[in-house]
Amino acid sequence: MFAKWPLLTTLRGYDRDQAGRDMLAAVLVCLMLVPQALAYAQLAGLPAVTGFYASMLPLLVYALIGGSPGVALSFGPVAVLSLMTAAALAPLAEPGTAAYLVAATSLTLMVGILLLAMGILRLGFIANFLSHPVISGFVSGAAILIAASQFKYLLGVSVSGLTLLDVLPALYRQLPEIHLPTLVLSAVSLGLLLVLRNLQWFGLKKSLVQRVRQFAALILMMLAMGFGAFLKLEQQGVVVVGQVVTGLPGFSLPSLDPGLLRELLPAAVLIALVGFVESISIAQSLAMRKRQSIDPDLEVVGQGAANIASAFSGGMPVAASFSRSGLALQQNVATPLVGAFAAALMLAAVLGLAPMLEHLPQAVLAVTIVVSVVGLIDIASLRRTWRYSRQEGAAQLATILGVLLHGMETGILLGVGLSLVLFLWRTSRPHMAVVGQVPGTEHFRNVERYEVVESSTVLSVRVDESLYFPNARYLEERIGALVSTRPQIRHLVLMCSGVNQIDASAVDALDAISGRLLSAGIQLHLAEVKGPVMDRLQRSDFLQNFGGQVFVSQYKALCTLDPLFAESAIHHHYG
Amino acid sequence: MFAKWPLLTTLRGYDRDQAGRDMLAAVLVCLMLVPQALAYAQLAGLPAVTGFYASMLPLLVYALIGGSPGVALSFGPVAVLSLMTAAALAPLAEPGTAAYLVAATSLTLMVGILLLAMGILRLGFIANFLSHPVISGFVSGAAILIAASQFKYLLGVSVSGLTLLDVLPALYRQLPEIHLPTLVLSAVSLGLLLVLRNLQWFGLKKSLVQRVRQFAALILMMLAMGFGAFLKLEQQGVVVVGQVVTGLPGFSLPSLDPGLLRELLPAAVLIALVGFVESISIAQSLAMRKRQSIDPDLEVVGQGAANIASAFSGGMPVAASFSRSGLALQQNVATPLVGAFAAALMLAAVLGLAPMLEHLPQAVLAVTIVVSVVGLIDIASLRRTWRYSRQEGAAQLATILGVLLHGMETGILLGVGLSLVLFLWRTSRPHMAVVGQVPGTEHFRNVERYEVVESSTVLSVRVDESLYFPNARYLEERIGALVSTRPQIRHLVLMCSGVNQIDASAVDALDAISGRLLSAGIQLHLAEVKGPVMDRLQRSDFLQNFGGQVFVSQYKALCTLDPLFAESAIHHHYG
Repeated sequence: MFAKWPLLTTLRGYDRDQAGRDMLAAVLVCLMLVPQALAYAQLAGLPAVTGFYASMLPLLVYALIGGSPGVALSFGPVAVLSLMTAAALAPLAEPGTAAYLVAATSLTLMVGILLLAMGILRLGFIANFLSHPVISGFVSGAAILIAASQFKYLLGVSVSGLTLLDVLPALYRQLPEIHLPTLVLSAVSLGLLLVLRNLQWFGLKKSLVQRVRQFAALILMMLAMGFGAFLKLEQQGVVVVGQVVTGLPGFSLPSLDPGLLRELLPAAVLIALVGFVESISIAQSLAMRKRQSIDPDLEVVGQGAANIASAFSGGMPVAASFSRSGLALQQNVATPLVGAFAAALMLAAVLGLAPMLEHLPQAVLAVTIVVSVVGLIDIASLRRTWRYSRQEGAAQLATILGVLLHGMETGILLGVGLSLVLFLWRTSRPHMAVVGQVPGTEHFRNVERYEVVESSTVLSVRVDESLYFPNARYLEERIGALVSTRPQIRHLVLMCSGVNQIDASAVDALDAISGRLLSAGIQLHLAEVKGPVMDRLQRSDFLQNFGGQVFVSQYKALCTLDPLFAESAIHHHYG
Repeated sequence: MFAKWPLLTTLRGYDRDQAGRDMLAAVLVCLMLVPQALAYAQLAGLPAVTGFYASMLPLLVYALIGGSPGVALSFGPVAVLSLMTAAALAPLAEPGTAAYLVAATSLTLMVGILLLAMGILRLGFIANFLSHPVISGFVSGAAILIAASQFKYLLGVSVSGLTLLDVLPALYRQLPEIHLPTLVLSAVSLGLLLVLRNLQWFGLKKSLVQRVRQFAALILMMLAMGFGAFLKLEQQGVVVVGQVVTGLPGFSLPSLDPGLLRELLPAAVLIALVGFVESISIAQSLAMRKRQSIDPDLEVVGQGAANIASAFSGGMPVAASFSRSGLALQQNVATPLVGAFAAALMLAAVLGLAPMLEHLPQAVLAVTIVVSVVGLIDIASLRRTWRYSRQEGAAQLATILGVLLHGMETGILLGVGLSLVLFLWRTSRPHMAVVGQVPGTEHFRNVERYEVVESSTVLSVRVDESLYFPNARYLEERIGALVSTRPQIRHLVLMCSGVNQIDASAVDALDAISGRLLSAGIQLHLAEVKGPVMDRLQRSDFLQNFGGQVFVSQYKALCTLDPLFAESAIHHHYG
């Protein structure tokens, strides 16, 4: 694995031009990272400084171990994982307490270890069981929850709860308690942010519009800190981020209490999987643009190491961020050293910004969070999935509703479970077609869809599914029904081009079918059996006992079993 | 459903010949049923008379509603369900108590209602998820457990427990307490039974050997009752079946306590499924011999009604019995009225035998049980499955071990779960093959298995699996790897004959693959896409966007995309 370690190749011949490119990219990303680090720490219920910590050491570690410098650049705290962290810790401790911090570092450590194990044991395939509709539904649901969780800051009220069923009624009850100065501040900030993100309304230059849009959150934050200090907002009762620990990050130790670790395990597994899927997708799309390929195992090891680093420097699960990857993609990054520059810049930011954060209202951070996650709510995806497949649309909807109404773990388990059950259900009642020859070819297609030629004595049946226990009995029934309406047939050829597996139950079923057909004077044959399936069939007694033949193609079967058909086929072919 | 009610057609023109045949079959079956009714009641921990009850009303009800008279004939108490009943009731009440009886009737009622619901809602397919290896493993495991549970009667000791881990150590601890007269009786009975079942050892006529074998248990039982009364075995401390309620069955009422019903539900579901699978298999094999077809929904309704009848007449879950179906198969049964005759005979048996049962030792019943279930232990099946597929063999072994070491529900859930997980695992890493044209045909096969012709600019790849979320990323990786080693190709044709479904995640993957290939100067095409898959693809934007074509066959694709190949193909064809 470490033969591919990218840093070694990098350091040989690192020049000024490369250093300049890396530095510029690092500066731009940090400008975006600073407000997000603060905002996501708030979302996770952790002190503001934790967000900075999670953007330093992990970013550095990932850059030095991981594969793609571009991914490293977008590494750090992300919105969805921060919400998942808050959800995992809420039942265990009160935000702001020491117990909460210990639980957070423990959770992050577990996430890191799980990812490391996934990489070493090559278990990354587990993430493949999160289908696109389920991931999309999960992200949409989480984005709605995130936005909902920030309303208390926007309104200056106190509300707890992690599902819509908890948050919405609590917000409604708190309506009379709304803190007017905070509400006004939120409204002004929101308006300002929307203007900053949409300068094209004022006919400004496109490149300027785009750049301001990327750093709109930072601009708003700086303005809010300035006006906050000037207007002494905290004296109006507006809640501010408050005193931040300055200087180097204090390294905290995770707890090793088995009870705590057991309680955190399900959330840690989910955070690891979601973080992995998000990071690997970003890595893949970055690699695609650059015509490179990624090593998923190396990526996941880097991601695990980064989370372990985060656990020992504050404790917030980290991953590659979709929002920062957009910026990272545009940068002409030269080497993984970009991560070291970014980490150094974040350290400078902590030292420089800390005194100012005292005046930053939480409501302003909430505004930046709400605006950024609204873009993650993807209703179009739900509509697209539903149009493509009702079943998959239902799984996506179940994921969203599960997340919103019962929590993120429920949502994702519901989605994955439903997707698998529906797949198994579809395979248990496979599509079957009577097929005939497409005239002039050796190709056989469904008689109901194509103008095809059929033999009068040989029935050709195509089964469009692997034959395995859930559909073995169904196969028996369907073939019985097909045969019963065709008294004149003498041979039945099962076209196995769609049969990718035949399990032991299905071999028994084929045996039973062949026996039943024989008793009705019909011989069963197989055609187009694939190599791996044939290898397996040869380990059973079926091929010796069933009395029929296995043909290389359906065409060959028909030519052999029905001489009249063969003649007419040749006529078609050469005619 | 009731248009097919078989009794209506039966009663029109029922004649003496038919009545004679039905009566003879009923007599023979009852001779086999009497000792089993007693033995399985003992196995279930229920009073001996319950076994008789379960052989009367249920048999009659099934015969009048169900489809196959042959199945009706083998209907009644069965060994595996009796053990499952004992296992379900053991945690709730002590055998012999009133609470135990109430729980038994409640369980049986639930089984009946579940089966009725399965029939009406057409949920019989659920039973298809019990694969043959799992059922076989379950029956083998249960048979071993049954035999183990009877050792306490053979040795005259007192042992409780329902898994081997409980029973074996308990038996070992009880070794010093063995009751010698009981042990001697067991040994003598066992020897006698083995002799009676194997009269061929003495060179007797084959037909006689077979008949005595079928009724060996009855003969042993009659002898034991005679000698038991003569030798006053109960005074030697040998435990006897004891006083049996004589006369008509006393109808007992099931409990409707929701707590009890909730506790019994998992066992009831399992008993219903296992009973259904056993009964439907017997019905199918009977129908096959007679070239008839069965109506599974009618069978399951009949089975549900029979269990409800059993609940209200003593309470022991009932199903068709494999052991009695062998006898039933040999009989030339005329009509479902055979069930009515059998029920009447069992009533006579209760009235006639009751006074004699007082002297029947439990050890003798245990001997008949052990000898009959030993035949159900099918190690050859495990070996056969293992040879066919290691994975399925593992699932079968897991089922057996689960049943033996942790209980029947664990075993069956483990087996079904493992079977499904292994199936999903296999589909997540599908077999893929580069294919070429079999010379002289339009057929394409794996280049590694066949002597085939390949195009130099068109790569033909066959994927042997439905494309869905667990394998979507794998597909991307594999195609990337295949293309990277072939710089000269311009087109990649995905042969979709084995692709039975394409889900939304896979469409996204195809989109990504097509984009990546395009950037490498390669156009993706599809061939042999099946009708239902094509219908679905047309609901996405993929076909408009990917830029390639969908060919009716791989051959057509090659002829279109590589004119040189087309020429050489025609050369082969006509050469």
